[in-house]
Amino acid sequence: MILDQTFKEQCMRKAIELALRGRGATAPNPCVGAVIVRDGLIVASGWHTRCGKPHAEIEALADARAKNVDLANCTLFVTLEPCNHTGKTPPCTRAIIQANIPHVVVGAMDPNPHVAGGGADFLRHRGVRVETGILERECLDLIADFTVWQTKRRPYSILKLATTLDGKIATRTGHSAWVSGEESRARVHALRAIAGAIIVGGETFRKDNPSLTCRQQGFDGPQPLAVIVTGHLPPTPEVFTLLTSRPQEVMFWTTAQEAGSDRGKRLQDLGCSILALPACQSGLDLQQGFVHLYRQCACHYVLCEGGGFLAMSLIRQHLADEINIYQAMKILGDNQGKACFSGRSITSMEKAVSLRLGQATRCGDDLFLRLWPS
Amino acid sequence: MILDQTFKEQCMRKAIELALRGRGATAPNPCVGAVIVRDGLIVASGWHTRCGKPHAEIEALADARAKNVDLANCTLFVTLEPCNHTGKTPPCTRAIIQANIPHVVVGAMDPNPHVAGGGADFLRHRGVRVETGILERECLDLIADFTVWQTKRRPYSILKLATTLDGKIATRTGHSAWVSGEESRARVHALRAIAGAIIVGGETFRKDNPSLTCRQQGFDGPQPLAVIVTGHLPPTPEVFTLLTSRPQEVMFWTTAQEAGSDRGKRLQDLGCSILALPACQSGLDLQQGFVHLYRQCACHYVLCEGGGFLAMSLIRQHLADEINIYQAMKILGDNQGKACFSGRSITSMEKAVSLRLGQATRCGDDLFLRLWPS
Repeated sequence: MILDQTFKEQCMRKAIELALRGRGATAPNPCVGAVIVRDGLIVASGWHTRCGKPHAEIEALADARAKNVDLANCTLFVTLEPCNHTGKTPPCTRAIIQANIPHVVVGAMDPNPHVAGGGADFLRHRGVRVETGILERECLDLIADFTVWQTKRRPYSILKLATTLDGKIATRTGHSAWVSGEESRARVHALRAIAGAIIVGGETFRKDNPSLTCRQQGFDGPQPLAVIVTGHLPPTPEVFTLLTSRPQEVMFWTTAQEAGSDRGKRLQDLGCSILALPACQSGLDLQQGFVHLYRQCACHYVLCEGGGFLAMSLIRQHLADEINIYQAMKILGDNQGKACFSGRSITSMEKAVSLRLGQATRCGDDLFLRLWPS
Repeated sequence: MILDQTFKEQCMRKAIELALRGRGATAPNPCVGAVIVRDGLIVASGWHTRCGKPHAEIEALADARAKNVDLANCTLFVTLEPCNHTGKTPPCTRAIIQANIPHVVVGAMDPNPHVAGGGADFLRHRGVRVETGILERECLDLIADFTVWQTKRRPYSILKLATTLDGKIATRTGHSAWVSGEESRARVHALRAIAGAIIVGGETFRKDNPSLTCRQQGFDGPQPLAVIVTGHLPPTPEVFTLLTSRPQEVMFWTTAQEAGSDRGKRLQDLGCSILALPACQSGLDLQQGFVHLYRQCACHYVLCEGGGFLAMSLIRQHLADEINIYQAMKILGDNQGKACFSGRSITSMEKAVSLRLGQATRCGDDLFLRLWPS
C-alpha cells in the first residue's frame, strides 16, 4: 500500500474526471469523485450524481461490494475530504470505518467552515491512514463552486467569452456570428443547461438581440433567467426577442433612477423584473444582484456572456469565479472591433489583472482556456 | 517490419524532435531528423547539425554502425525525403541502398521543385519499401522555412508577439515592460540568435527605443540587422539607442519621398541604410524589402516583433510564414491599449483572418501558440 506519487496522481485524476460527471446536478452539494485501488489497479469507482443521492465514497463502496472486492487491502481515493456529519445521508466517515478500508487519500479538505478537517481527523483517530493534498489545487478548483456557495452565499459565476486571437468579441458594428466554432458553441449550451441565470450587458442585449436559451439537444429543464445589466432600459421592448418570447424570465439590473422611469414601468407591465443597484467605479455594484439571485431565485450558477464592459466589471468586483475563454484562431485586426475586456484606463503594464491558467485544451479549431482569479 | 500507426508516429515524432536541434544552423538546408528502428526499438538516430555537415540519414547510419546494429532488419524514419542528388555531400539515397536498409518511412516529400519525388522513387526502384506521409503535416511545418527559401527566394518570416489575453501588446502610453514572463523572453532571445534581421514598426521603435540585440547567454554571433518600417524617419537620431550604438546595422524601410528627405540623408550619414518601398493598401509593400534582405544581406530568418500595424500588414501581404504568440494570462481591459493586430476596418466576423494552430504549450506562466497561415 505504499503507492508512488505518479500513480496516486493518476488515481486522483480519474476521481476528478468522475466527479465532473455530476457537475451542475449536485448543487448545493459539491461534485465529488472516488476510486478504490487494489494492487495498483482501480477496482471500483463512484461519484456523487445529484443532490440527495449517495456521496461518491458510498457509491464507490457499493461498486466494490457489487464486484466482490475485499476492501481490507484497498486504498480509497476521494477528491474531497469525507463528510463527518449527518445531512441528507449518514456520514461517509462511518461507512469507511465499517468497510474496513485501511488507507484513504484525500484531494482537498472540506472548505465548509463548520466541518473543516473533521472527516480526516475522525478517520485517523480510528486507525485509518489518511493522506491529504494529492492534486490539491485541481481538487480545490473542482469544488470552487461549492466554496463560493459556502463562504460567500451567492451563485458561482462563470464568465464565458468567445474571442479572436486579438481579443475581439465582435466587429465594430457588433457582428459576432460566429467567433468560435461549433464544438465551442455546443459546450456553451451545456453550460447554459446548468445555469440558473445568464447575465449580459446592455450593448450585447441591444446588438445581438439574444434569446439566451439553452438549445442543447435533450434539454428539458427550465430555461435560465436572463439578466441584463444596463444603464439604459430599452424604450422599444417589442423589438427584442427576449421581451416578446419570455418577458417573465427577464430581469434588468439598472440604476434606481432608470428603474423608476416610465420605461421601467412598461417593462414591469410586460412581466419583467427590475432590480435597482447602486452605482460604483466600474459601473453598477453587482454584488447585490448576485446575492438576490442566490436568495430569491435559488440560483447556484450564473453564466456571464459579455460584453467587454460587463466582463471587466465582474473581474474588478471579484465576481468572476471562473473565466472560460473560447479563443478562435482568427484575427480581426481592427482597433474599433469590440474588446473582450474594456472600461479601464491603464498606463502601466503592471496594472494588468493576472489570472491563473487552469486548463488549455483544443475545442474543435478553437482553444479553450479555463482561468481562475489569482 | 509491419509497424503499427501509433508506433510509426512516435518514431517520426522523435525524428522531428532531433531535427529541431539543427534549426537555424542548417540554413540554407532544411533541418532534418532520422531514427533507425529494430524490433520495436529506436536503435540509432541522427540529425543534420549544420550546413556542410552530413545529412540526418548519414548521421543515423553512422550512429548505427558505431553501435554495431545490423541494418538489414531495420527501418529508417526520416522527416524529409532522402536527397537523390549530389550537393555538398553525396546523395543519401545511395548511402541507404549501400547500407542494405529494406524499409524507409518518410515524413514529408521534398518541396524543392527540382528534386521533388526523386529520392523516394529511386529507393523504390532499387527494392526498398518506402512509406510516405507519416506525420506529414508536422514534417512539412518543420521545413516551412526551407520551403519558403526554395519556392519564394526570400527570408522565412516569424512574426512574434507578446500579448495579454485581451490582445494588447502595450498600454495606451506604449508601456510594455513586461507583457510576457521570463521564460518567454528567453525564448525570444533564442529566436533572435538565428534571425538575420529583426523588423519593427515605427511606433514600436519610437516608444520602446529598443536595441533589438540577442542577449542570449553564450551568443557570440553577429547581431541581427535592425529593420524599422516607418512612414516617418526620426528627426532626432541621437535619442535612439539603435542609432547611437550600432547605426551601421540599422535599415529603414520607408516611402521614396521620406527616403530622399533631409532626415533620410542625415541617417545615411550616420551609417544607416534606407530602402524606399512602394506604398500599398496596408502601408508599405514589404515584399521588395524581404527580397532585398535575402539577396543583399544573405538573411534566412526574419523576426518581426510588432507593433500591431506592421503585424497586420505582414499577414495581409502573406509575409508572416509562422506566427508565434506568447500569451500572458493578463487582462489590460483598456480599449486604448495597443492592439496586437491593427489597421483594418471590418464589419463582418467572416472577414477575420483564420490561422491554423500548430502548437499550444505552456511557457512559464504564459501560453505559447505557434500558428500558421491557413
